Amino acid sequence: MTKIKAGILGATGMVGQRFIELLENHPWFELTDLIASREESGKSYGEVMQGKWVQEKEIPKQAASMIVKHSDELVSCQVLFSSIPADIAFKLELDYARKGIAVISNASAHRMSKNVPLLVPEVNAEQLDWIELQKKENQSQGFIVTNPNCSTVPLTIILRALEQFEPIQLMVTTMQAVSGAGYPGVPSLDVLDNIVPYIGGEEQKIESETIKITGMKNLKVSASCNRVNVKDGHLESISIKFKNKPSQEQLIQALQNFEAEPQKLNLPTAPKPCIVVRTEQNRPQPRLDRMNGNGMAITVGRIRPCPILDYKMTILGHNTIRGAAGAAVLNAELLYVKGFFEKK
Amino acid sequence: MTKIKAGILGATGMVGQRFIELLENHPWFELTDLIASREESGKSYGEVMQGKWVQEKEIPKQAASMIVKHSDELVSCQVLFSSIPADIAFKLELDYARKGIAVISNASAHRMSKNVPLLVPEVNAEQLDWIELQKKENQSQGFIVTNPNCSTVPLTIILRALEQFEPIQLMVTTMQAVSGAGYPGVPSLDVLDNIVPYIGGEEQKIESETIKITGMKNLKVSASCNRVNVKDGHLESISIKFKNKPSQEQLIQALQNFEAEPQKLNLPTAPKPCIVVRTEQNRPQPRLDRMNGNGMAITVGRIRPCPILDYKMTILGHNTIRGAAGAAVLNAELLYVKGFFEKK
Amino acid sequence: MTKIKAGILGATGMVGQRFIELLENHPWFELTDLIASREESGKSYGEVMQGKWVQEKEIPKQAASMIVKHSDELVSCQVLFSSIPADIAFKLELDYARKGIAVISNASAHRMSKNVPLLVPEVNAEQLDWIELQKKENQSQGFIVTNPNCSTVPLTIILRALEQFEPIQLMVTTMQAVSGAGYPGVPSLDVLDNIVPYIGGEEQKIESETIKITGMKNLKVSASCNRVNVKDGHLESISIKFKNKPSQEQLIQALQNFEAEPQKLNLPTAPKPCIVVRTEQNRPQPRLDRMNGNGMAITVGRIRPCPILDYKMTILGHNTIRGAAGAAVLNAELLYVKGFFEKK
Amino acid sequence: MTKIKAGILGATGMVGQRFIELLENHPWFELTDLIASREESGKSYGEVMQGKWVQEKEIPKQAASMIVKHSDELVSCQVLFSSIPADIAFKLELDYARKGIAVISNASAHRMSKNVPLLVPEVNAEQLDWIELQKKENQSQGFIVTNPNCSTVPLTIILRALEQFEPIQLMVTTMQAVSGAGYPGVPSLDVLDNIVPYIGGEEQKIESETIKITGMKNLKVSASCNRVNVKDGHLESISIKFKNKPSQEQLIQALQNFEAEPQKLNLPTAPKPCIVVRTEQNRPQPRLDRMNGNGMAITVGRIRPCPILDYKMTILGHNTIRGAAGAAVLNAELLYVKGFFEKK
Repeated sequence: MTKIKAGILGATGMVGQRFIELLENHPWFELTDLIASREESGKSYGEVMQGKWVQEKEIPKQAASMIVKHSDELVSCQVLFSSIPADIAFKLELDYARKGIAVISNASAHRMSKNVPLLVPEVNAEQLDWIELQKKENQSQGFIVTNPNCSTVPLTIILRALEQFEPIQLMVTTMQAVSGAGYPGVPSLDVLDNIVPYIGGEEQKIESETIKITGMKNLKVSASCNRVNVKDGHLESISIKFKNKPSQEQLIQALQNFEAEPQKLNLPTAPKPCIVVRTEQNRPQPRLDRMNGNGMAITVGRIRPCPILDYKMTILGHNTIRGAAGAAVLNAELLYVKGFFEKK
Repeated sequence: MTKIKAGILGATGMVGQRFIELLENHPWFELTDLIASREESGKSYGEVMQGKWVQEKEIPKQAASMIVKHSDELVSCQVLFSSIPADIAFKLELDYARKGIAVISNASAHRMSKNVPLLVPEVNAEQLDWIELQKKENQSQGFIVTNPNCSTVPLTIILRALEQFEPIQLMVTTMQAVSGAGYPGVPSLDVLDNIVPYIGGEEQKIESETIKITGMKNLKVSASCNRVNVKDGHLESISIKFKNKPSQEQLIQALQNFEAEPQKLNLPTAPKPCIVVRTEQNRPQPRLDRMNGNGMAITVGRIRPCPILDYKMTILGHNTIRGAAGAAVLNAELLYVKGFFEKK
Repeated sequence: MTKIKAGILGATGMVGQRFIELLENHPWFELTDLIASREESGKSYGEVMQGKWVQEKEIPKQAASMIVKHSDELVSCQVLFSSIPADIAFKLELDYARKGIAVISNASAHRMSKNVPLLVPEVNAEQLDWIELQKKENQSQGFIVTNPNCSTVPLTIILRALEQFEPIQLMVTTMQAVSGAGYPGVPSLDVLDNIVPYIGGEEQKIESETIKITGMKNLKVSASCNRVNVKDGHLESISIKFKNKPSQEQLIQALQNFEAEPQKLNLPTAPKPCIVVRTEQNRPQPRLDRMNGNGMAITVGRIRPCPILDYKMTILGHNTIRGAAGAAVLNAELLYVKGFFEKK
Repeated sequence: MTKIKAGILGATGMVGQRFIELLENHPWFELTDLIASREESGKSYGEVMQGKWVQEKEIPKQAASMIVKHSDELVSCQVLFSSIPADIAFKLELDYARKGIAVISNASAHRMSKNVPLLVPEVNAEQLDWIELQKKENQSQGFIVTNPNCSTVPLTIILRALEQFEPIQLMVTTMQAVSGAGYPGVPSLDVLDNIVPYIGGEEQKIESETIKITGMKNLKVSASCNRVNVKDGHLESISIKFKNKPSQEQLIQALQNFEAEPQKLNLPTAPKPCIVVRTEQNRPQPRLDRMNGNGMAITVGRIRPCPILDYKMTILGHNTIRGAAGAAVLNAELLYVKGFFEKK
């Protein structure tokens, strides 16, 4: 089978490294272009990453032998996974889209741009309709699709699964992993024997993005964000109030049975089940549950009544997989199945 | 000045060690009796604690030279600080009370016993009136006074400071330090690169004790408890709804100006101020703020409106000082000033 | 292909869980018996492990559905992987051997027993000759083979690779992971913001076992052991003096080219290469290098001259894979290839 | 008593904050000048440090109210404690010396400058003789004195205490705290569930500075440096060979009885004893022993024979007190007593 040619923009960063891992042996995509800074270009990826590759598995052999390109150079990819700083992402992603490439971005630059989907395939696949408008407006064959902030994704999936009960209030206290701040990111002195009860802009993002993605206009969200000494996996204590309050049994059923388009379409990166419900009283835990569904599942536990709102629970999502690189790959898979790009 | 003779029941445990630190150079109390298990008795405290003393400062010299007693032996103390397992505490504390001793207990055995004050001096000094009833009922000259669970104390102090606005709903998510579980306590495999979203019985205790201590019958409390990789200091993200909602300015003023009996009486262990309000957006932090007021102050920060209840904030209290040993010493100081025991 | 029937003795413990992971999809072995305590027997493994399974991946489906047995019950396995406390292991392992089963033990009970190989396949495969003697002495068809202590394995492999240069002095300072002490194991208060510079009996074991396993009678070993806040992977700073001092180039070559019987025989669990040599100056690191060779490779870095002995380097091995469960599986593979047991 | 006027150059940095803590209530020195960057000058220290003060105690009141100066402004201090980056320290420290000020520097800029003492008062007080030469050469009334690298100090003190036995070989493996790299310093991703077996330039510094400071020309030093997940306190596993090997008893006596000029002169910051010998087998530990002697003592434990060199032991020193700010204050105290500056 001929595969779809895929590139990575920002191939040497932390999320770029995750892209390389997720695209190794991918059934539909093959890596053709690794794009990084000018200084890094012209050498093999393996050479460039000496001392910089920080994943727990070795660099996949095929990627290690590829020659890194700079953004000036020609690329052959049809789909481009992007994870670069927002300031340079804005123009560069538009340029690639104008060249006819589908840009699947983890950067925040275009999240709020008009007609750019802020996509969580399980939650708002209908935003794909915006792509045609975007192409027209930009007069380009290519286009940009973005994925949201890492702490928002698990919330939106849980809310979609419980949509039938009409959520109207959501209180959330996050305990977020240090990898969410990239590298070097959080100084060790900040989290060693410590917690920082503040992450710049994060609470506002959760409170606004959650509503935009789910389209739940009647929902109020209140967030408190904390940075804790955990490598990967954002844990969130939440409490929800519904317009149509379900029984606890109904709530658990709705979470366990939740299946959205990616699951129905059997997309390669789609977790099945999408939501893992744990019944032990001490789960989910970041280290034990973050890799459920290869890092793409949301794990929920400690479901119990709330004396103030309706139900409390603890949820967990892998911030650099479900909340970043894996989210983008799943987006690309959905776009491909929906015919938004074709094999050349 | 003649000092009051003080003993420690459970002198070798973690809270016992804190008692020894807090009573070193205490202006009113002097250590006369260190009581521990039969195997530990008969030797000097310094000898017994070889390899067991885990505080950051050395054993105070005077304590190190004292001979450890067993509970069979005669004691000369008028006030006895107790921190022993609940099962043996029940009878032993009663025995000491019957001998005419004021037992100030950090154990949970008698917290729910009739006429035994569950005392936070800043919050419910009126419970001291129960002591006379207790003495009569037990036909003893001595008596027992207890202090509450470590995560409840900061909540009750904040609530008392805000009482004028009539709190009616309190949502709290705790991030609790490992020292709260004693030693050996929490296995390192549980919290290394991890969080445990469950502490047995803790949520129920917070939800019920908070109301009992404050006497706020109209208050509803909802708690979610997590164990995190921090040594000392319980951090709590809270949100409160009031019957008479104050302005943010009024709320801050009420916290900053809060002064209760221990402050007014200038008790040696009373923190002044009782509540430290931090205005930086990234405080309180456990490592930086837990020792405010020598570990006895409650630190509050991140005060801001809540989209669902009225105000959100982050609060912090030192769990083994304000939530255990220091709480007991402050209780004893209040009792002394109020004439509940005299120097012999 | 018919597979060899394999059992696990102590299937619910931490190493038992690792056995289950390593035997899932193993090309030669299939799980037939999971043996645990009496209370755990009679239920499915999945049911028993509710809240006890602490690996990062879910329980393999096939294992989850197996019914746990007690040691009283009949088993059908030909090879039995054992990881139970030394006191009960002694008799139980002998019993299984007398039933004709090949017992591959990670317990320390029989490590020093006469004619019981203390096997590291890359280092001392010649000890397999002892098995015939053992069978005769015990008048049994089955037999016992053990693997050594987790911090010793990496040292013995490095020494065998450098044997040609005749190592005569080895200084080693270990920084050992908490999983080496099992669960609950190391209290979090011991390693949070801390190091414990002592592990009971460990230095003696390293100093004596290293010589026994390698058979290097002229070697002197001096060990200092520390417990650090790392989950998996023992890091060791070592310095070696040789009788025939190689050039640094020769030393690196010898490590890189080291290939022993497991590699030559292409055993499924044998890492290739056996020793990974890293040239960056800040490697090996436990989190980044412990999974090299699926946790079975030894990683070496920072090779440089020593002003006192000849060469310094830093080495790393995964303590619960290469130093425990994986070591046992590799032992079983070697035994099978060498004809020590056959498929029934 | 009139006190000596003291200033701090680099008052807002991490070591600057420690200076402020150590000089609060100092019997001989009083703070008169806090010098920082141009942007920080003109405001009160308390205002400038909003969100930047990261010590566990609050900012001392007197310091908080002082107005921060820039280095352009006039100062009134006689002694200036310096901790600024090496590149700007070089010229600035010389300038202050030329103004007649005694510059006590923790910066590395002048450590190797001719006639500038690299002073550890317990080890090489004789280097004070260089000061007169330095003043002449620079034609200045003031002068510069430096203190060495944080991991070297404990080694040099131990070596001086054992000088009588003529140390000839020293192997050292360090486990160094993250505060040694300043703030933001070590990324949390580097040390969370991990160790970095490399600290740039550190091994060379230890190997060369140790010999320069002690003047032990016959000593060979071999160092291996590791960065671990500990906040403060460098732990070092060492092994020593002597020309005149003492008995273990003699060695312990020499360490316990070690008393140098700072102890004999009763300098306020001098620890008594200078070396704390622990006999439990699991000490020293960073968290439990780093504050011995108010952070100025060196703690030694696990003294035992080495199968290769003569004796092994584990030593510990507080890197930001004994290895930085406290070292400088002790230097200033010695200089004052020796008449190198007088009260104006």
